[in-house]
Amino acid sequence: MLTAYANYQFSIIHSPLDLRDLPTQLSSYQRIDMRRTRIEAELGVDLKHVEPRTEILGTSEQKNCEQMFGVVPIPVGYAGPLTVTFSNGQRSELHLPLATTEGALVASVNRGAKATVAGITIVRTVNHGMTRTIAFGIKNPSASLRASQESRIKNVRFSIEAIVNGIRNNERQWKAAAEATSGHLKVMSYDIDISKQYVFLTTAFDTDEAMGMNMVTIASQAIADWLTANVEGTECVTVAGNVDSDKKPSRRTHERGRGFDVTCVADVSPETIRDVLKTTPEALLRVADAKLVIGSSLAGAIGHNLHAANVVAALYLATGQDVAHTVEGSLADTEVIQHGGSLRIQVRLPALLVGVRGGGTELPAQAQCRALLMKNKSGLPGKQQLAESVAAAVLAGELSLLAAQATNTLAKAHEKLGR
Amino acid sequence: MLTAYANYQFSIIHSPLDLRDLPTQLSSYQRIDMRRTRIEAELGVDLKHVEPRTEILGTSEQKNCEQMFGVVPIPVGYAGPLTVTFSNGQRSELHLPLATTEGALVASVNRGAKATVAGITIVRTVNHGMTRTIAFGIKNPSASLRASQESRIKNVRFSIEAIVNGIRNNERQWKAAAEATSGHLKVMSYDIDISKQYVFLTTAFDTDEAMGMNMVTIASQAIADWLTANVEGTECVTVAGNVDSDKKPSRRTHERGRGFDVTCVADVSPETIRDVLKTTPEALLRVADAKLVIGSSLAGAIGHNLHAANVVAALYLATGQDVAHTVEGSLADTEVIQHGGSLRIQVRLPALLVGVRGGGTELPAQAQCRALLMKNKSGLPGKQQLAESVAAAVLAGELSLLAAQATNTLAKAHEKLGR
Amino acid sequence: MLTAYANYQFSIIHSPLDLRDLPTQLSSYQRIDMRRTRIEAELGVDLKHVEPRTEILGTSEQKNCEQMFGVVPIPVGYAGPLTVTFSNGQRSELHLPLATTEGALVASVNRGAKATVAGITIVRTVNHGMTRTIAFGIKNPSASLRASQESRIKNVRFSIEAIVNGIRNNERQWKAAAEATSGHLKVMSYDIDISKQYVFLTTAFDTDEAMGMNMVTIASQAIADWLTANVEGTECVTVAGNVDSDKKPSRRTHERGRGFDVTCVADVSPETIRDVLKTTPEALLRVADAKLVIGSSLAGAIGHNLHAANVVAALYLATGQDVAHTVEGSLADTEVIQHGGSLRIQVRLPALLVGVRGGGTELPAQAQCRALLMKNKSGLPGKQQLAESVAAAVLAGELSLLAAQATNTLAKAHEKLGR
Amino acid sequence: MLTAYANYQFSIIHSPLDLRDLPTQLSSYQRIDMRRTRIEAELGVDLKHVEPRTEILGTSEQKNCEQMFGVVPIPVGYAGPLTVTFSNGQRSELHLPLATTEGALVASVNRGAKATVAGITIVRTVNHGMTRTIAFGIKNPSASLRASQESRIKNVRFSIEAIVNGIRNNERQWKAAAEATSGHLKVMSYDIDISKQYVFLTTAFDTDEAMGMNMVTIASQAIADWLTANVEGTECVTVAGNVDSDKKPSRRTHERGRGFDVTCVADVSPETIRDVLKTTPEALLRVADAKLVIGSSLAGAIGHNLHAANVVAALYLATGQDVAHTVEGSLADTEVIQHGGSLRIQVRLPALLVGVRGGGTELPAQAQCRALLMKNKSGLPGKQQLAESVAAAVLAGELSLLAAQATNTLAKAHEKLGR
Repeated sequence: MLTAYANYQFSIIHSPLDLRDLPTQLSSYQRIDMRRTRIEAELGVDLKHVEPRTEILGTSEQKNCEQMFGVVPIPVGYAGPLTVTFSNGQRSELHLPLATTEGALVASVNRGAKATVAGITIVRTVNHGMTRTIAFGIKNPSASLRASQESRIKNVRFSIEAIVNGIRNNERQWKAAAEATSGHLKVMSYDIDISKQYVFLTTAFDTDEAMGMNMVTIASQAIADWLTANVEGTECVTVAGNVDSDKKPSRRTHERGRGFDVTCVADVSPETIRDVLKTTPEALLRVADAKLVIGSSLAGAIGHNLHAANVVAALYLATGQDVAHTVEGSLADTEVIQHGGSLRIQVRLPALLVGVRGGGTELPAQAQCRALLMKNKSGLPGKQQLAESVAAAVLAGELSLLAAQATNTLAKAHEKLGR
Repeated sequence: MLTAYANYQFSIIHSPLDLRDLPTQLSSYQRIDMRRTRIEAELGVDLKHVEPRTEILGTSEQKNCEQMFGVVPIPVGYAGPLTVTFSNGQRSELHLPLATTEGALVASVNRGAKATVAGITIVRTVNHGMTRTIAFGIKNPSASLRASQESRIKNVRFSIEAIVNGIRNNERQWKAAAEATSGHLKVMSYDIDISKQYVFLTTAFDTDEAMGMNMVTIASQAIADWLTANVEGTECVTVAGNVDSDKKPSRRTHERGRGFDVTCVADVSPETIRDVLKTTPEALLRVADAKLVIGSSLAGAIGHNLHAANVVAALYLATGQDVAHTVEGSLADTEVIQHGGSLRIQVRLPALLVGVRGGGTELPAQAQCRALLMKNKSGLPGKQQLAESVAAAVLAGELSLLAAQATNTLAKAHEKLGR
Repeated sequence: MLTAYANYQFSIIHSPLDLRDLPTQLSSYQRIDMRRTRIEAELGVDLKHVEPRTEILGTSEQKNCEQMFGVVPIPVGYAGPLTVTFSNGQRSELHLPLATTEGALVASVNRGAKATVAGITIVRTVNHGMTRTIAFGIKNPSASLRASQESRIKNVRFSIEAIVNGIRNNERQWKAAAEATSGHLKVMSYDIDISKQYVFLTTAFDTDEAMGMNMVTIASQAIADWLTANVEGTECVTVAGNVDSDKKPSRRTHERGRGFDVTCVADVSPETIRDVLKTTPEALLRVADAKLVIGSSLAGAIGHNLHAANVVAALYLATGQDVAHTVEGSLADTEVIQHGGSLRIQVRLPALLVGVRGGGTELPAQAQCRALLMKNKSGLPGKQQLAESVAAAVLAGELSLLAAQATNTLAKAHEKLGR
Repeated sequence: MLTAYANYQFSIIHSPLDLRDLPTQLSSYQRIDMRRTRIEAELGVDLKHVEPRTEILGTSEQKNCEQMFGVVPIPVGYAGPLTVTFSNGQRSELHLPLATTEGALVASVNRGAKATVAGITIVRTVNHGMTRTIAFGIKNPSASLRASQESRIKNVRFSIEAIVNGIRNNERQWKAAAEATSGHLKVMSYDIDISKQYVFLTTAFDTDEAMGMNMVTIASQAIADWLTANVEGTECVTVAGNVDSDKKPSRRTHERGRGFDVTCVADVSPETIRDVLKTTPEALLRVADAKLVIGSSLAGAIGHNLHAANVVAALYLATGQDVAHTVEGSLADTEVIQHGGSLRIQVRLPALLVGVRGGGTELPAQAQCRALLMKNKSGLPGKQQLAESVAAAVLAGELSLLAAQATNTLAKAHEKLGR
């Protein structure tokens, strides 16, 4: 084996740079090593620091990353404990693994955890499911020409309505086709939008413990296949028609939610604001008004928050989520009001797209960080507990940064911690 | 030393969980190890897979991540070579290190590289600089009461105009104050917005080779300090007033750009579309119309693209950028038109916020991935070459995914590669 | 009588300018005349051309316009006949009275009527009802301070939820209170939005034959009164909380509709395009793509149309509607596609707010114009027939202007007709 | 003459309904009369109340309304006097003619005038000019095929850049072509947007005393003609490419302004709020926060105001403006803050499109109402004085309605005045 490996390695160095089809009998580590060696030889670059330890590979080379030649390590810091009451009333302490290279972030969330020691409460969680939008069009438009001309007077209604009716009248069948693609997937609901010559079918799926983007793509293809085979004149233009706006910021996601739509709230006493955050309720309210209400509006932002994306990205990276879903995380709304004698801070995250199975969540290091974050069981489904935990962490980060800005210490923190 | 370390380790296990102030005479690795051991002992979780190799630590424990207790390794795959003509006319081949846990992404970009073998051209790059918005308000509003009442008739103009005039009339001075904070920072331009009782000053800075968010925060604090000290009645509400919408999606960033605003284009021949992408120009145009023009618009999206965030995130992670800036990367616009006998695909990325110094860019593995990506020098400043390289990679990803959707193979690719 | 009138008139000329409380025993005409005479004398202006004919006054001086001193006559032109199939399948010919001072508008709609002689079909009408949003807040926030402090740990949920629950749990009662204000009003549905310390209750009402803005304001006040009296801690901040966005353009109105949401469509044959519109399907499609899809999107417009507001305003004025609702009319979406051998043009007007009773609709001239427009009965409720008629007229206007732009004759038409 | 007229009238009754080409030797009144008689006979409707008085016709039948058959009279009420300081410092009293059929509007503005007796100040007026957007495309795309294929490698830049360069390099010439179309028109500035295969040229014109939409359309046609004749490969797709968003609500108009962009402000003392508006500063601030800041934002509105469209429409109608431009008027932003001891209300109207010549402004009754409104000369150009007067009237309307909502008297006012 070793000899064969060495020979193979030798030979590829002299062939054009193609890193794909390496012998399947090799280990993941060996294939990664060959690719790295090969790139180094061909391009004269040094890649020794991206060499992985064998035990953290898991399925990454086979399932998570084609032509994998190494890893970049993202530092993980600890913040917490964070006191949270989940939406089912269960009170718990969270330990946050934050993967980031941006100095000051972990320290900031940690301070937010201290300032919310009285507890963050999840007041509302809606599971909208994972959505995927199929765009349908009319098949063979030129062939329908003659028919249309023969019956121009009578055929005044949209022939596109045939597609809509096909969807509405065959719900049972195409849902069955979708659910046949996986034992872990169920159709929750669907929406139809019509624009120009297209019908957009947006289906929301329950994907069990997985984030499920791949599952819903496969299920959507099955729906598209069923409808094009059974509803005359229907053509699938794409199974990803952007009304779902996956990994793109949109008003629809902001307004209607996608995945987990979580709202959490914390009341912070004047004493805590003074002792932990070193500022006053009035100063916090003023920054919130200038920045979150007015500044965000001037920018034409979707979502009015401080830095939700920072905390979402750090927890997504640490727990193996798809980090590009940070985009949806950035749609958060943070509001600060006076409430009784306290300052109330509320954060709504309309679209947390997370999983506890599949994708990067099962890689060894990521799985251990997730186990740390979810150490204390709430009784909620794992995916929901994860989403609610992320929301609470975001609130801690929002509060802490708000205070840093109210005291003009943001720059100082960056001078000290972030370089 | 070893004894002291062991003793210290022992003692902290029995004190309340505080991972911050470990002895400075210890190495980063030792401190990380102590924290991990401590968490494991306190919480009964296993964190051995997040243990880092010493040689990849660089400054991470001191500068990039407080309370660091380990790393999560993100797999890096190779895509390329990608043929690019930079904005200065220099033609080059790019080798892309893509850090991701999402199966199929690397393979998709790789196919996009093959389909654009005739070359991607950067047609426009504007460096808007890194922006930061200070929100000013009127100092001590109640004190201004009497003055106002005495002169109600004459004092009809905004007293807030005093702040605006203070900014306009003292440009030289506050710019000098800003530039005194770093030899690597220059003020490029500024904008003023007025709303309610606030004046928002958005300054754009040239931050040399760094992405520069920290530098501009410090410089903005200096501007705020100068103006509040020298313009009577002026108060700084926050040095981060959200008009810059850092890490938040906004129409202003989309319309006006921030950081590097890069537009690139590729012409793809019908033969390449047939042979590499296995589809037709007509099918690609139809998917682009349904998805990018109509679907995105129905969603109320800012930016009309396929999955720019995926490629931006993968390159940002690999090269040590701030991954939360993926949010701005998601604002891309992808357009597909017929052009002569070819299909032309154009991508504009209005806000690429990157650096080649500071932040995570200098960590050992990240620096090596960056060296791979930037192996061939273009003659452009390093930061600009990096931004243009990211843009070209996004185009390759857009084209490939567009083709997958036109051929209904998106689901198949996910069945095969992503799980 | 005459003497008394003359004396009164004389006396007021010498008192300060107050035109309100004129003797009720005078006729409307006399009061209008006195006001006009008085303004002329006081200010030295000539107002003889605003003198009304007695027979067109109706209730205007008592009910439609305080301190009325005359009228401005708006020219009304005829366009038609317009062939329409209403949503109930009834085919009819419409005669359009268009009130406008903008030359070329009537001629343009008239040409659109000719080009749609094969018929415009109303494919969808949804009656969303007239909406009004009440904003509720927490009563006496400072008094709730002590209670809150005593129970800070337990009282983590929103006390604002008490308001929401009060609404949800007392539906029957507050609906009854609303419906008690008028025999012509019914509650159709309601929505709740929560933001900051406010609860927004948006109620949709069926207002019978009236447009109904006044009725729903009165009914909303009754709802507000009932809830503040019966749900402890609830305060009405305003009965017009802008979520309804009456007379303001908003995405919510565009997306969800308000009042009548009407979609109509017409197929235009290549022969008609050539003979009546003097252009080609290709040219029309290209203008529509550049202007409606791309141009409107660049502008960040809500609604993508040509000049829906022109036709809506002209018909609203002629038939006595509230012309400020032209704002909602401007939210229309016009789409043009190839369909079989024809060009299909579709217009959706998401918010037509019309009535056939009350407001200006019963003034003598306006009532006659309405009778002309609605001469042929469709069997639909009058208000719906009016809304569908307006939608069809808008489509005719959109098609005609599109053609003028495709042939570069827009400027010529304005040179000839509009000055 | 009389005989001929009678005969002609008789004959047309028996021919198909065509109201266009009536004998030019007849008077406007006679032609209007014939059309009305004819419609009455053909359709059996009664139109006697739309009969105009001869002296109010002016040019309406020849220039303002094709196929004119009568008038609808819109009641005009008086509100005022309104104390205003124009942007040049001139203080004046305005008398407002408000044309409306909506009861309570005149009374409301009148009360606003009383509450601002200390004066409304115009703090900023920018004349952006009247804009029109031409959309250009590439001429004969198929012909450029061969050239493109021969030089695929070199021709990497957009050929669309040829159009852009043609515009930039020939500014002097096409501006001259535009200005040759009218002695009253000057090019002020221009903007270029590129999207898909289109180049949008938005030109801003000074149109002297006219609102000028027709003038700028004719001038834009001249620009389009010049550029298509002189820049190879350029084609005009439409002279009205919607980036100007005329009569459509758009973010661009809201952000950048169009026509006159006027900001005005008034300080209202606590005593006036108590005595005239029957409420308190606190109550007004709370309604403004709930309604204008939060409610409008929830609705996704462009512009945050109470009912600017009502006042704009009423003054536009009375003074002969194009009432469809009420749409742009609805984009106003109203802000209320505490300022010294007073309440400060500020209104920005980003797009007031008005004229004092042309269109409906010269009709006899409309001209008299305009003369009333502009009785006191400010020294400003007439069009600017008109725009600033409209803005001040809107502020009065906003303040009064705000107070009605703060006191829960909105419903009562409608019960009493509007029915």
